[in-house]
Amino acid sequence: TRPLGVAAIGYAFMGQAHSNAWRTVANHFDVPNFEQKVLVGRDAVAVAAAAKKYGWSESATDWREVIARDDIDIVDICAPGWLHAEIATAALAAGKHVLVEKPLANSLAESETMVAAAKAARAAGVRSMVGFNYRRIPALALAAKLIAEGELGSIRQVRASYLQDWLADSESPMTWRLRKETAGSGALSDIASHAIDQVQYLLGDTVTEVSGKLHTFTTERPGPDGPEPVTVDDAAWATLSMASGAMASVDVSRVALGQKNALRVEVYGTTGSITFNLENPNELYFLNGTEPIEVQGFRRILVTEPEHPYISGWWPQGHVLGWEHSFTHQIRDFLLNISTGTDPSPSFEEGYGVQQVLAAIETSSAAGGSTVAIPQIITISKD
Amino acid sequence: TRPLGVAAIGYAFMGQAHSNAWRTVANHFDVPNFEQKVLVGRDAVAVAAAAKKYGWSESATDWREVIARDDIDIVDICAPGWLHAEIATAALAAGKHVLVEKPLANSLAESETMVAAAKAARAAGVRSMVGFNYRRIPALALAAKLIAEGELGSIRQVRASYLQDWLADSESPMTWRLRKETAGSGALSDIASHAIDQVQYLLGDTVTEVSGKLHTFTTERPGPDGPEPVTVDDAAWATLSMASGAMASVDVSRVALGQKNALRVEVYGTTGSITFNLENPNELYFLNGTEPIEVQGFRRILVTEPEHPYISGWWPQGHVLGWEHSFTHQIRDFLLNISTGTDPSPSFEEGYGVQQVLAAIETSSAAGGSTVAIPQIITISKD
Amino acid sequence: TRPLGVAAIGYAFMGQAHSNAWRTVANHFDVPNFEQKVLVGRDAVAVAAAAKKYGWSESATDWREVIARDDIDIVDICAPGWLHAEIATAALAAGKHVLVEKPLANSLAESETMVAAAKAARAAGVRSMVGFNYRRIPALALAAKLIAEGELGSIRQVRASYLQDWLADSESPMTWRLRKETAGSGALSDIASHAIDQVQYLLGDTVTEVSGKLHTFTTERPGPDGPEPVTVDDAAWATLSMASGAMASVDVSRVALGQKNALRVEVYGTTGSITFNLENPNELYFLNGTEPIEVQGFRRILVTEPEHPYISGWWPQGHVLGWEHSFTHQIRDFLLNISTGTDPSPSFEEGYGVQQVLAAIETSSAAGGSTVAIPQIITISKD
Amino acid sequence: TRPLGVAAIGYAFMGQAHSNAWRTVANHFDVPNFEQKVLVGRDAVAVAAAAKKYGWSESATDWREVIARDDIDIVDICAPGWLHAEIATAALAAGKHVLVEKPLANSLAESETMVAAAKAARAAGVRSMVGFNYRRIPALALAAKLIAEGELGSIRQVRASYLQDWLADSESPMTWRLRKETAGSGALSDIASHAIDQVQYLLGDTVTEVSGKLHTFTTERPGPDGPEPVTVDDAAWATLSMASGAMASVDVSRVALGQKNALRVEVYGTTGSITFNLENPNELYFLNGTEPIEVQGFRRILVTEPEHPYISGWWPQGHVLGWEHSFTHQIRDFLLNISTGTDPSPSFEEGYGVQQVLAAIETSSAAGGSTVAIPQIITISKD
Repeated sequence: TRPLGVAAIGYAFMGQAHSNAWRTVANHFDVPNFEQKVLVGRDAVAVAAAAKKYGWSESATDWREVIARDDIDIVDICAPGWLHAEIATAALAAGKHVLVEKPLANSLAESETMVAAAKAARAAGVRSMVGFNYRRIPALALAAKLIAEGELGSIRQVRASYLQDWLADSESPMTWRLRKETAGSGALSDIASHAIDQVQYLLGDTVTEVSGKLHTFTTERPGPDGPEPVTVDDAAWATLSMASGAMASVDVSRVALGQKNALRVEVYGTTGSITFNLENPNELYFLNGTEPIEVQGFRRILVTEPEHPYISGWWPQGHVLGWEHSFTHQIRDFLLNISTGTDPSPSFEEGYGVQQVLAAIETSSAAGGSTVAIPQIITISKD
Repeated sequence: TRPLGVAAIGYAFMGQAHSNAWRTVANHFDVPNFEQKVLVGRDAVAVAAAAKKYGWSESATDWREVIARDDIDIVDICAPGWLHAEIATAALAAGKHVLVEKPLANSLAESETMVAAAKAARAAGVRSMVGFNYRRIPALALAAKLIAEGELGSIRQVRASYLQDWLADSESPMTWRLRKETAGSGALSDIASHAIDQVQYLLGDTVTEVSGKLHTFTTERPGPDGPEPVTVDDAAWATLSMASGAMASVDVSRVALGQKNALRVEVYGTTGSITFNLENPNELYFLNGTEPIEVQGFRRILVTEPEHPYISGWWPQGHVLGWEHSFTHQIRDFLLNISTGTDPSPSFEEGYGVQQVLAAIETSSAAGGSTVAIPQIITISKD
Repeated sequence: TRPLGVAAIGYAFMGQAHSNAWRTVANHFDVPNFEQKVLVGRDAVAVAAAAKKYGWSESATDWREVIARDDIDIVDICAPGWLHAEIATAALAAGKHVLVEKPLANSLAESETMVAAAKAARAAGVRSMVGFNYRRIPALALAAKLIAEGELGSIRQVRASYLQDWLADSESPMTWRLRKETAGSGALSDIASHAIDQVQYLLGDTVTEVSGKLHTFTTERPGPDGPEPVTVDDAAWATLSMASGAMASVDVSRVALGQKNALRVEVYGTTGSITFNLENPNELYFLNGTEPIEVQGFRRILVTEPEHPYISGWWPQGHVLGWEHSFTHQIRDFLLNISTGTDPSPSFEEGYGVQQVLAAIETSSAAGGSTVAIPQIITISKD
Repeated sequence: TRPLGVAAIGYAFMGQAHSNAWRTVANHFDVPNFEQKVLVGRDAVAVAAAAKKYGWSESATDWREVIARDDIDIVDICAPGWLHAEIATAALAAGKHVLVEKPLANSLAESETMVAAAKAARAAGVRSMVGFNYRRIPALALAAKLIAEGELGSIRQVRASYLQDWLADSESPMTWRLRKETAGSGALSDIASHAIDQVQYLLGDTVTEVSGKLHTFTTERPGPDGPEPVTVDDAAWATLSMASGAMASVDVSRVALGQKNALRVEVYGTTGSITFNLENPNELYFLNGTEPIEVQGFRRILVTEPEHPYISGWWPQGHVLGWEHSFTHQIRDFLLNISTGTDPSPSFEEGYGVQQVLAAIETSSAAGGSTVAIPQIITISKD
């Protein structure tokens, strides 16, 4: 059979990260044959240059034409969130396997359309996945494994936060990420989405109720034609009740000066605990509460051993990986799902679950923090 | 003039910590002369043994008799919270300077009585102080100084948490600390009170609104006569709006397995940030955001230099202090307030301010997280 | 002009690391056009598979034929150390630019041959470089820059160590790395070479005298035909006197259980200090001793800002790099040296300088630690 | 029986630290009754003030008179090293139990006299101890226990260093500590002595051979009458061969800018490892190499549990101790030795063992690093 043909849409930050993963995945993992066929963008000159640089054979400006091509089997959507629903549903309808960047979409309504499209496509053997790439960081994959194996006992509480500081400067200019109509929300959808996905992923659990608060510290920023109002949040806080009875807290900020990319997760169970910080992504801290108290303590596991998730494709122990490798692992798993005919995780339904929590936090915030229940998630039917 | 006569009430954990501070303060600091006169407790034999061990000349079982004594000038109240109001108001009325352990009391009503008593006594030159001892940890005192001097610019947000694990074992037995009638609340009053005091102290700011949630993970624990219901919280979460416009979050837990005494504070301003963890109390992490980005980073200040608060009384640089020394510094400052005729801080009014926030969090939690405003604090009139 | 043709020799650990760098460098940096032409190895089947996996157009088994090809401009030598001299001198004689893995060779005599070959080739515009890739870790490149700019004042002492544990298990089997005839020495040439190169690189200084000690903890290991003697060191210690008057210590081990890849460097100057650990390669710790003592401390610089060396080719701040990226940067710089007609650093002469120190440590160890002077390094004549 | 009468000689830094320990030990531990009788110093006014401040009943200026007093049972020698031998031998001859600050003395000859005196006194039931107080830091006591119990297997190597920076400023003035005739040596006897004692203590092993180097970075410093030569070392490096076959390295510095009191110890065994840093004295890092590799890592043990050495006398878990508490524990153990009629450790013989290593390092340094054997230690005869 011919190699799988891949098209990617978008060549900004996420486009570069995904391209890098496509470029390198086969050098490290056994994956089905594929070809980096075409990179799609709106600016013909810029996308042609990006395609050349990132290793794509061609470039194009019309994604509709691309997804109609017979030689394209996979569509990797790295475009901004407001385009996700339209592209993804069209691509799935065209029978293309779809990987879409997180968050799934900018609104619940769009997300629902995408879930329906994914469900229909799934019946036809077409795969879909949402790009919560941090699940593929070896340390977090190990955390999930340890929790699933019961090493932490019953989980009581989770503390998840994601702190950045790229908006700490009040004079930092206006962008599409700071307008509600293009971004949906601010720190909430951009980074709280990652934190919430981790909570649900690590615990294998779902949020049932939330209380939340959004805040915008800098309400106006310089635009090309003078000051513009910032219409999304800079920071958000929420408490989450889980179906299992566990409690979680999530807080995120884009103005936490000095914190660069600090997704921190702490999970406390009845017999063990785990902590993680994305600024040191090769480290997982694990406490085994069943050991003699004399020698108990959080141990720093340098997650670079062949026994650890994904590491066998890389280097000997102690030779650490970087942020980008989570994308490489994501592509590897997506390709294996396609070749083995299995459904990827996180599915669009899981992405929709995160959207529901984000929406509930917004609703709660607007209501002064009152508790908001999460509607039951659409059942994933795999038959 | 004769030395100040000191009486302490209570000889459990806090009584030992305060006694240790009285025992050592004059070895390290120039303070007015005083004598450890009498230690008061309910069990005559036990308190006599404790008095001997902790360096008190006498012991007694009736605190009313002790505060009536002419040779007692200072009453240090280390008894449980439900006794604070009665003892403190009586001692102040008797003209004794009063140091009372935190939190100020178990209820707002009691706190108000105490504030009124402190105000009346203040007019007569009688001093009162509530024992939020962590203000006297050199690293936190340095943090407050740096913030007050503007090194962080305008504060945007604070993240404060206090995690312990002494209730992580579900079979850990029932105590008075787990009953609402004796403890008032659980983690909230015991440890969130410290976190909230730090937020207000470090920022020189007050909380105006809260949204909060309390939770009890283990609802029943073994008592002497079989299982008993736990009627206080194991954990609490809150978001706090500050008068300045800053935002703060506070979360506390007694079941965070592996966290032993982790009061963590992170303060993010427009030009600098600070982080602290009580498990490493000699360290303050400070980021100066005005430096060239090439060399910016959180620096670990080992707060053991003679230039640092309280250190000149101790050891050369790098010879670290422990948890207990915060009490020594507290006594030192209290004694200096008495000798110089100045009012201690934190005052009962400040302690009452913390109580208001605690009460509002409980109210908000009972109302599903709805925002609750803090009533205006009683004005501190010093004339 | 046609793209530069590249051949790589060797496809084991280092061959994979170099291949990965060739595969990705152009996706992130502006470099002259080149093509991954041919991968060379002894086993035809295995090298063909590796070539396919790592992105090389062809494979071959005879390196002599490959370096004779007109379409090959660059030879990247990833073969074991005992082959370096023969291949490198032949390739340079054939007018090919040569990158050779560290250490330069297994013996001083071989190194001298290589230096002579590099010198001759340099006169003809042919470039040569030895692969001390850690110079290209952004944090260490930043360290070198800060030191060169005088941020540390005059350097007094350096502490460099490199701790691993892959030989901690006494039953770990015999390999070519544990035989003197194939490996030259053990931890000394493998990892102390990195540490020594860092000392000389960071300080811009040279070692003049050494006292050293080698030790083999496990003197026999299982081979295919029964136990075999280990004829190289497991660990080494040395003190180094520098031309500037600075002192350095180096110690390395392959049995430091729990240390996975801990190249640690500490540099102490009269006005500043720096520390680094390769297990957290994105962090540089820097203390500025000219600041007020009240706020002095080692700051953690997360070396991921666009202002930092090499970072502009990668991701936004806080999105960390891994171990492998040092190779990508090495290839980038090597390619730029070729295109701009400048001499790469570290040169073969610099590699030879490291060999001299290694040899002197061996000599000193054999003489019970007596001080051994380093002969004056061969002058680098660039005209 | 009457309480033990204690005299202390010296009221500078060490005098204050010892006084503080005498002042507090009985508040925390069950020890025999004792009284802080008299503090001895040369300056009558200053020592009187110090005695009052530190809790001694009297002061005196003639130590000979004091050790002759019948009401004195214990002599605690905190005077500088050149006085140790004279005072200690006299006090032991007078039948007083003696605690002497480390190092034992300034010369081997003096040390030998002291060992002989201690041996003679021991036969008469008179106890003697040298004050390597860091053995009584709970974390290091725990480390010793774990090693003794075999948790690390067979020890292969130790890395011990002690870094300070109080001489980093070249203009820091001349003191008695920088003259060979008063101090014996510099960093070597002051801080390498601690490191060497730890190596021998933790491993229960003795040094057999050394290779060492001493260095003085700043050879002249301002004295009251102009520049004076510094005649002791600022820094030292040594490799130590142990009787067991283990290897150790020790390096110390007083000019490691930014390191305040960093006694670091790393012990690597066949089945486990330990690391420690005195700047965070409540933490012990322990790696259990027999666990599954998937979850192996150095764990941070916060050594504040009741199960940990010495902690039961102090606070609940997580309430950390400081540097000074090692002295409190030392006094506690010394008092218990006296009351139970057992010999303290470290004995004068153990102190002498450290002196032998220090002397050998000096000899080796003078001989350019050549290996120097340690003469067999004087046998400790306890009968």
